[in-house]
Amino acid sequence: MARVSQEHLDARRRQILDGAALCFARNGFHATSMQDVLKEVDLSAGAVYRYFSGKDALIAAIVSEVMGEIRGAFEEAARQTPPPTPDALITTVLGRTLAAREFLAVDGQPGFPRLVVQVWTETVRNEELAAVLREGYGAVLAAWTKVVQAYQDSGMMRTDLPADDVARTMIATAQGFIVQQSLFGPVPMEALGNGLRALMSMDAVRPVG
Amino acid sequence: MARVSQEHLDARRRQILDGAALCFARNGFHATSMQDVLKEVDLSAGAVYRYFSGKDALIAAIVSEVMGEIRGAFEEAARQTPPPTPDALITTVLGRTLAAREFLAVDGQPGFPRLVVQVWTETVRNEELAAVLREGYGAVLAAWTKVVQAYQDSGMMRTDLPADDVARTMIATAQGFIVQQSLFGPVPMEALGNGLRALMSMDAVRPVG
Repeated sequence: MARVSQEHLDARRRQILDGAALCFARNGFHATSMQDVLKEVDLSAGAVYRYFSGKDALIAAIVSEVMGEIRGAFEEAARQTPPPTPDALITTVLGRTLAAREFLAVDGQPGFPRLVVQVWTETVRNEELAAVLREGYGAVLAAWTKVVQAYQDSGMMRTDLPADDVARTMIATAQGFIVQQSLFGPVPMEALGNGLRALMSMDAVRPVG
Repeated sequence: MARVSQEHLDARRRQILDGAALCFARNGFHATSMQDVLKEVDLSAGAVYRYFSGKDALIAAIVSEVMGEIRGAFEEAARQTPPPTPDALITTVLGRTLAAREFLAVDGQPGFPRLVVQVWTETVRNEELAAVLREGYGAVLAAWTKVVQAYQDSGMMRTDLPADDVARTMIATAQGFIVQQSLFGPVPMEALGNGLRALMSMDAVRPVG
């Protein structure tokens, strides 16, 4: 029996994950069956179940991968001196995450934001997925907190407020922007960058009079 | 036949809406039946259907009401000179909205954030609800945009960036904060205020070196 290369295994795993994400984005997690995923990726049940035990395992793997990417991007930013300002950093990381998932389009609209919001809802009833998301969020929060500490250490931000609170707020802007995209369609990433830049100006700009 | 007072009608409508919101927060929109709502509010089908034609009408009424409250709060803020800064304004409005719905607790956790995230997911498959949400969001965005213009007019914020982009970003922070509460449990509102205050300091604080 021929040995299957790691490269082949990885490519197949990729193909299954992407196909499943497309099904979930298109029809929702609940309305998607494993049969739908098999059909989408054009593989046999045996081939797919070799990698994933079911829908729960698929969605958990998708979430872990996205959170891992995001965490990595913020860890990289924290190592820069000075780190990129929030407007640049958030729009770059979010923009890259969305661009890498353009293939998830549904009816010509980006499917990734819809997928994310569905995952959030699903966690209410799925404790395993909630745990995956909590762990991923904890890691992203820790990485973002390091970026905020770097802002404070390099004198870019007032230092009398908890870095952890700032990190939560930065993550909230990205999450809320995803919500808006999922509900009201694409908004240019520039809007978020502009909003953050304007907010950053408030203590520097003195009230008139 | 005795005439039923408007007060009585309003109180009953209130009772039905609150009971339905509690059911949706507790078990999700899909897993809740009209029977569950009737049981929760302890009224007959006839009494409830007199006010609402079904689950869709209930959720639409709940959404309209929340969005109306929020819009009103921002319209009021826009009329103040100078308007409250974003950290104060967002935490006040969001804090008030959450406090008014403390009765939606599920297992001792705030149920309102979970309800909100469920509504977002539901809009993917419910065009009528999506329209209600779009209209509500448009009104909140317009009100917030006026607040941002007031910041700019009173010299509290740089004026070279679109007020509309800033408003979207401000709304995103509140939405993202709701997401975090729904996923990871209560976070003190102060965290969001601190995060916004830190962000507002960035242009004023000069980098070291």
